Amino acid sequence: MSVIDDLASEFARLPGIGRKTAYRLTHHLLKSPPEEAGRLAGAIVTMAERVKRCAICGSLGETDPCEFCLSGVRDRTTICVVEEASDIAAIEGSGSFRGLYHVLGGCLSPLDGIGPEELKIDGLLARLDDGVGEVILATNPSVEGEATATYLHKVLASRGMSVTRLARGLPVGGDLEYADGVTIAQALAGRRDM
Amino acid sequence: MSVIDDLASEFARLPGIGRKTAYRLTHHLLKSPPEEAGRLAGAIVTMAERVKRCAICGSLGETDPCEFCLSGVRDRTTICVVEEASDIAAIEGSGSFRGLYHVLGGCLSPLDGIGPEELKIDGLLARLDDGVGEVILATNPSVEGEATATYLHKVLASRGMSVTRLARGLPVGGDLEYADGVTIAQALAGRRDM
Repeated sequence: MSVIDDLASEFARLPGIGRKTAYRLTHHLLKSPPEEAGRLAGAIVTMAERVKRCAICGSLGETDPCEFCLSGVRDRTTICVVEEASDIAAIEGSGSFRGLYHVLGGCLSPLDGIGPEELKIDGLLARLDDGVGEVILATNPSVEGEATATYLHKVLASRGMSVTRLARGLPVGGDLEYADGVTIAQALAGRRDM
Repeated sequence: MSVIDDLASEFARLPGIGRKTAYRLTHHLLKSPPEEAGRLAGAIVTMAERVKRCAICGSLGETDPCEFCLSGVRDRTTICVVEEASDIAAIEGSGSFRGLYHVLGGCLSPLDGIGPEELKIDGLLARLDDGVGEVILATNPSVEGEATATYLHKVLASRGMSVTRLARGLPVGGDLEYADGVTIAQALAGRRDM
């Protein structure tokens, strides 16, 4: 194993990167100025050292509590529940949500041995007393995400919390012709007056 | 820009990695044990520090001259000419070549301003006196790769060198139905007695 193979095997551990892509990335760095490799290595080390998980909501950032939980301008009456911390960036990217977040750390998946105890549900329930009026369930539109949302709805509704779920329907910019039947059925069921 | 964004932008500089994949890789490292990030950063630094380009053949390795040029067991009468050092790994992976290599550092591409002077052709010619009997042209089966092979053939044949080119034809495991017309034409032209 040469140092080239070593780096390629490290790249190949990353999700979605196969052996050939790993070698392509390695050779790209070999052909680039050494500063580029240095900057990438430095960014990895800095991130690994500096990023913390927020003890309140479970999001990842450079402070604990995180920027959302510390913010004085965000709407503290609404909590958006997501499966993973990486989902927060997608929702922030939409620019349409100004409330707080809660990261479950996964979704219910009995086959993988993930039940309600494995998710950060207790932490969510503990936050409800602080004047929270609505919980938006933003788990993935997958079988496991739906099951998780259904379970959380039951738990939260029994405490009198208002619970909503992200709308399902046709993705913007998508093509009706290529949409799957389940999505079209959801789009029909959720149709709105114009 | 947080340290998470910093790392994602560094990943996004790599070829074939877009913004979303860059964030997926970053979040994968965030969820992994810190040792994994450390190993990746370490492998990048080690590679950038240790890899050298062989002054004889232009391949990349931990020694200069490289393991191929130094080897006592490889066939020194045959030189396989490739465009990039990364092509060597693909040919070595086939286990079917035991000769030496020569890296051109690209291919002829007048539109990009790459003429014969930009390629390591002088270095190749200088190696021919050392008892080399055959030069295998293993440039890519692209328009530029073919032009480069045609040019090299002219230069090398004028010095009485035996010059061969990798066979073009159907890729093994491929499907005739999905093969393009040019490939099928090449496969027909190069058909062999069974």
